[in-house]
This record gives sequence, structure tokens and C-alpha cells, in this order.
Amino acid sequence: MKAYHLGLDVGGTNLAAAVYDNDYKMLAHRSIPAGADRNWQAITGDMAAVSRSVIDEAGISIDDVECWGIGMPSCIDTRTGLLVNAHQFGWKNVPIREWLEPLLPLPVRIENDANCAAYGEALAGAAKGRANVVMLTLGTGVGSGIIIDGHIFKGSDGMGAEIGHSTLVQGGRLCACGRKGCLEAYCSATALIARGKEVLGEACTNAKYVFTLAKEGNSKAMDLIDEYAGHLAAGLSSIVTIFRPEVLIVGGGVADAGDFLLDKVNALLPEATYNGVTIGVPPVVRATLGNAAGLIGAAFLK
Amino acid sequence: MKAYHLGLDVGGTNLAAAVYDNDYKMLAHRSIPAGADRNWQAITGDMAAVSRSVIDEAGISIDDVECWGIGMPSCIDTRTGLLVNAHQFGWKNVPIREWLEPLLPLPVRIENDANCAAYGEALAGAAKGRANVVMLTLGTGVGSGIIIDGHIFKGSDGMGAEIGHSTLVQGGRLCACGRKGCLEAYCSATALIARGKEVLGEACTNAKYVFTLAKEGNSKAMDLIDEYAGHLAAGLSSIVTIFRPEVLIVGGGVADAGDFLLDKVNALLPEATYNGVTIGVPPVVRATLGNAAGLIGAAFLK
Repeated sequence: MKAYHLGLDVGGTNLAAAVYDNDYKMLAHRSIPAGADRNWQAITGDMAAVSRSVIDEAGISIDDVECWGIGMPSCIDTRTGLLVNAHQFGWKNVPIREWLEPLLPLPVRIENDANCAAYGEALAGAAKGRANVVMLTLGTGVGSGIIIDGHIFKGSDGMGAEIGHSTLVQGGRLCACGRKGCLEAYCSATALIARGKEVLGEACTNAKYVFTLAKEGNSKAMDLIDEYAGHLAAGLSSIVTIFRPEVLIVGGGVADAGDFLLDKVNALLPEATYNGVTIGVPPVVRATLGNAAGLIGAAFLK
Repeated sequence: MKAYHLGLDVGGTNLAAAVYDNDYKMLAHRSIPAGADRNWQAITGDMAAVSRSVIDEAGISIDDVECWGIGMPSCIDTRTGLLVNAHQFGWKNVPIREWLEPLLPLPVRIENDANCAAYGEALAGAAKGRANVVMLTLGTGVGSGIIIDGHIFKGSDGMGAEIGHSTLVQGGRLCACGRKGCLEAYCSATALIARGKEVLGEACTNAKYVFTLAKEGNSKAMDLIDEYAGHLAAGLSSIVTIFRPEVLIVGGGVADAGDFLLDKVNALLPEATYNGVTIGVPPVVRATLGNAAGLIGAAFLK
């Protein structure tokens, strides 16, 4: 393994790049607007440019960099390098690895961004030193990453581990994916805000609004948080029943509520989980690395 | 690896043992009543006796047997050899490996029976030659087995992969485990029979009754099978979304309905699955080994 690692986190809003040493110490970081409405040549050109610029800023040689690790908001067939669907960029079934390989003289390693975030938290964050970890990122949608025996698990064709689109309530709420009853339709920040609008009124435009009211003792908001915690505990119970991870990590905007939410979820999880009272359940903890999780995970992809 | 493999399938009704060669050919088989109401010394004594007897019947030496592979109807902590709960025998948190090791001069390998069945089907049955397989056994309950890269996956502590008790409808039907909304409460034969009693009357005492009426064109029975197929497709969709296996296997009593059921499930699965229409879904096939699956899987445990 070379001395330095280059990670790029591609989002619909920003392209963020960073260089790390082998101890996960960040040497340089830069973020530029994604300009997602431009053509792919312009965007991938900027992906390379911001990546080159952090290498320069870190004052290292590209020859000492292990790889160009990239996290993307899409299913990616890591065998073929085919990106399935990055709706932020309007890219569908594009040969992302082929697009990128000519742009930097480094091996391209590319992975779903939620998988990168989970891997980053397992390497250097909330689950540092743990080999079996599942992370849910509760934001606009619900991203998920599964680490088994220290490796990212993404299904036999590289396109699995989409826990956000596993079923929580068959035939239930409409999900952004067009199907019904997905975990995402109940556990995303979007879902909590939508319920907030129904129960608390149109002023509820973000998850924090609900948590703030609940903390102030508003009984409707408190009920809403209990309802949300119930959904999350039910979703996590399936993960535990299948994977029995050592730690469950929760990230994304909703996780900013911290212990106020996680205490409820941790209290519900044993009874919500098959054999949970008898054999125990893993702790649900908050992600600690924030946006850096995806960058570290990408940088250290294998 | 030695030339022969000894498998024991422990059920609440029978103890079945068999010897296989390295090509999965059965050399001898014997089944005796489990006598599950006796004390543990008597039962484990019979487990050893029936196993010795098939070795004798096969005409081989115990020195040429790789291991004593045992499938049990329980969560088993395979690190410690602790059996968590085999309710058929009234055994809870018992040191099953310690109980068995003195009884035969062979390494004891012990595993949940549904995991053994999935492993057997992946080695020598419906998914022969496939390394990534998930099997559901639709019987009194719903057993499940997950094979990843050719190995049984059972969670980081050996007690996972209980897909039957993952959530299909949060807060839904009461499950035999005491929780609500488990996949088992919708997809077991028991669940189908219960719905059959509601819709078709008390004469519905087994799954076959519903399928026979449906095949004869009884519209209520047909609706019931469509409802059941919908539950099963929803459950399988979560498995595909997370694991993206190469094949999904369905075994147990309900699977005896064959293509009449599986054609419906295969037709529903792409739309039921996240990205299923775009990237495809694996075929849902019927288990081919019957009771031998668990025996072969146990015999070839590693």
C-alpha cells in the first residue's frame, strides 16, 4: 500500500476531494460546486481537476497515491464499472470507470457513496476497529452500507445493500423510488418532515423543527418522534435479525437529533428484534465523521 | 478432506442420518423417531447411535469420515457451540457441542437446519454451482439460509440470517415468535392456512387445500394465492435488494405448489424490487433435494 490515499465524494451539489495518510489523517481537502446540469465531460473533468488540486495542496507526488477512490450517489456495478442511475446528474447506465480512467494516472475504485460512508465510519469513525457494521444515512433518502468481516458487502453483483428500499410496510407509504412501503418512506428525513407537516403544520420544513418542538415538550411532536423511532427500530430490527452486526450506525440529518432519538431507538430495539431480549442487540450509535466518512471510505477502497 | 461425510438432521419428529461421498452421493440413510419429550442424555445418545448406524450400514470406517455435521432447529452460536433455543426439545442455552463431542470420535460441526438446507441446495441441488444463494423454507414457520461466496452467512455472531423474522408489515399480523409483522406471519404455510380458514372455511387444514381449489378455478382461493404470492414477492424483494443473490430458492410444504405459485412470484418480483425492472432480478426456483438438502448441507459443513 502506498503512503497516501485520494478520495472523491461526488454529490449533486458539490464535488469534494481529500488526501489522507495511512493513519486516516487528512492532509488536504477541497470542495467545488458539482454543476450537475452540465455535460458529463465538464463534470468528470472537474472531478479530476479537484482531485489533482488536493494532491498538489497536500504537497505530495501522485506516484505516492494508492488509488483514486470515488463515492457516487448511484448503484454501481463494480465488476464492469457501470453506473446504473445517478439521477442528480441524469446519468443512467453510463461507463463511469471508462470515463474517469483517462483523466488521472491512478487506478480508479468506485463505489456507492453510502457504502463509502459506512466503510469510513468502520475504518476511522463511530465503529473504528469493528469488522461487522451496518450504517443507515437518514437524509433526503435512506442510504445504507454494510460491512461484513471488514469488507463492504454489496450483493453478489455489486448492486445490493440498498436497505432503504427493503420493505418495512408491504403496500404502505409511497416511496420516492415509485414503490410502496420502503423503509425509506418511513425513516428518511423527508418522511419525518412530511409527517411533521401533517401533524404540526406547514411550518415544519426540516427534521430539526420536529425535534426542537419535541424537546420543548410539544406532545404532538413527541408522539411523532415516538412514531418515527418505532419505524426506525422496526427497520433496524430486520438488519439485526439478518446481519447481527456489532454496531449499528445512524448518520444523516436526522441523526443530528442525537441521544434524544437514539435513546428511544436503543430502548425499543431489544423487544423489536427476534430473540433480541434473549441474545441482545447491538448498540445504535451516531456517525461521528460527518461528510468526511464518505471521503475516507472512498479513499481507502480496495 | 476425507472420503466420506456424515450428516445428521435433527427435527422435532425424527432424527435422520446419512453418509455421503465427495460427489454428494448418498451411501446410507436412516431415520428414527426423535422422542423429543425424553431427557437430553437419551436424545443425544440416539443422535450418536443413528449416526454410528449409518456409518456401519455404508460399510466404511469412521476414520474415513470428515466430520459429524449436524443441523438443528435453533439459533446456534457456532463460536461457542451454544444452542440458543430448540423449543421442540425444550432446550434453551445448552452447550450442545459439549454434549455431543464425547459421543463420536469426530469433529462436531453444528449449524441451524435452515442454513444447512440452503447450503445443501447450493452444493448439490436447485442452485448447484452457484455461490450466492438465498433460500426460504415455507413450512410451519419460515426458515432461511443465506450463502455468500459459497459460505453460509449467519451474521457476525452466528445467530443471524433469520429472514423469517425480518419485518414485512410493521405492526402487522402476530407472529409465532410473539412479535408483529414478521415475514413468517405472512409467508409460512401456517399463515396461508390461517387465511384459508378465514376465506374458505374450516375445511382448509393445509396449504395444498388452497392450491387445489385455486387450480380448479375457485375465485376466492385464486385471490388468496395472489395475496400470498404478493407477500412472498414483497419479502423476496427485500432479499434481492440487499443480497442480489444469483438464485432464490423456495422450499418447504408451500413450495410443493410448484410453478402455479412460482410463476406468479417470478412475474411480480421485478416490479416489487428496487431497480428490479432496470437491472433484473434472480429467478425464484423450487428446492429440488427435499429433506436431503439439510442432510447434505450438514454433512458438508466446514
